[in-house]
Order: sequence, then structure tokens, then C-alpha cells
Amino acid sequence: MAPVTFAHDTLDPTLAARLRPAAAAPDGRPLVTAVAQDAHTGRVLMVAWMDAEALARTQATGLATYYSRSRQALWVKGETSGNTQRVVDLSLDCDGDAVLLRVVPAGPACHTGLQSCFDTLVVPVAAS
Amino acid sequence: MAPVTFAHDTLDPTLAARLRPAAAAPDGRPLVTAVAQDAHTGRVLMVAWMDAEALARTQATGLATYYSRSRQALWVKGETSGNTQRVVDLSLDCDGDAVLLRVVPAGPACHTGLQSCFDTLVVPVAAS
Repeated sequence: MAPVTFAHDTLDPTLAARLRPAAAAPDGRPLVTAVAQDAHTGRVLMVAWMDAEALARTQATGLATYYSRSRQALWVKGETSGNTQRVVDLSLDCDGDAVLLRVVPAGPACHTGLQSCFDTLVVPVAAS
Repeated sequence: MAPVTFAHDTLDPTLAARLRPAAAAPDGRPLVTAVAQDAHTGRVLMVAWMDAEALARTQATGLATYYSRSRQALWVKGETSGNTQRVVDLSLDCDGDAVLLRVVPAGPACHTGLQSCFDTLVVPVAAS
């Protein structure tokens, strides 16, 4: 994918310089993959997307804010459900296209009411 | 994104029916986001992509196998470095476009030699 700038006037410059797109929104804006992990239990809660503004707002507010590709809009997690995610820290991966949020969730992460979006289906794997 | 079939003759049909693309490879094949988590420590190790064949091979061999978008090829994690990931279980998320692999890693997950690809940069977040 061609180099794309994660430009946002309030985004941490150190972070901005390291970001690389994992995917693009329908309007072409670059997105990184965001993984939310429960800071206390270690459970992986959900995977979503973030654009530069979602990253900047998450950093500034301490509340996990994602970008919805289907709604093409920012999405403060829990804004309507109350199940917000307070962000303890945010780590960038080695190639700059994914962030890990360690969060303290106020309630279930999944819209189905399950604690984790990964509680849905576990498939068997052969023993190696 | 338009419906896309994750067709593969050895892919678990229950899994195949639930999969939805998170992104597409350069040749158009649908991909899901894959998150690898250390089954013992709970650390999130890396984020990568899987196509239908990567999922089928992971399920069949018990070794984490990803799809590299840059090399446009399957990639058995650790095939050259020896740092394989033995998969304990594989969970699909609620919207079917991400999988969580709980793995037992034979060595560092990151090509930099760090245990996790997320050990690279931690950015501060405001207290909420």
C-alpha cells in the first residue's frame, strides 16, 4: 500500500510518524487495526479499526474510540451502551499498522452481551 | 464490503460459513485479521492476516500459519526462525472477520527479537 500520512493536528507526532495503514476506510482514510485487551484479566475483548482522529481522541480522553467502517464515523465505545473502555496504555506494533489497547471495561465488550467478541465460536485445532 | 466466500476444500464448514472479510489480499482473496496471544502469559504477541488456506492449515497442523500480503504467500510462523506458534485454540469473533489464536510460542514472536510485536512503542494516554 502506498505511504499514507496519518495526519491529525492533535495526534502525538512520535506516534504519527510510525503509523502505517492496515486498511483504508471507504473514503480512503488510512486505518490501523486496534486490539482491545482487558488490563486485569488479560482477555482479548475485540478487534476494531482506528483512524488518526480515533487515536488522537483515545489518547486525549483515555476512552477507547474507534472508527466504524460501516457507519463511516468515529465511535466512542460504550457511548450508548455505557460499556466504555478506559484505556490504561496503548502500544504500537513493530510495523506500525496495529495498536494494542489495554483497557478497563465498564461492561461487556460485545454487542451480543458477551464479555468478549471472541466468546462466539471456538473451533478445534489439531495437536501439533 | 460485498459478501465473499472463504472457499477451501479442507476448511471447517461451520467456520467457513461464519467468516467475513476484514480486508482483501492484492489478488482479491478475502482475509481475516488474526491476533496471536500467548496462552500462558496472556500477552498479545502479534497481529497478522489469514486467508482460507491459512486457517485450514492452522486447524489441520496446529501451527499458526498466516497470509503475508506483502509476499502474497502463506507463511508458517517460525518456519525459518524456528519461533513457531503451537495453537491451543482458535476463536472467531462475533462478526466473523477476526480470529484469536491462543498459542504456545517456541520463541519471540517479533522479527526484531522481542517477545511481542507490541513491545516496540508505548504511548501515553490521558487518565479518563
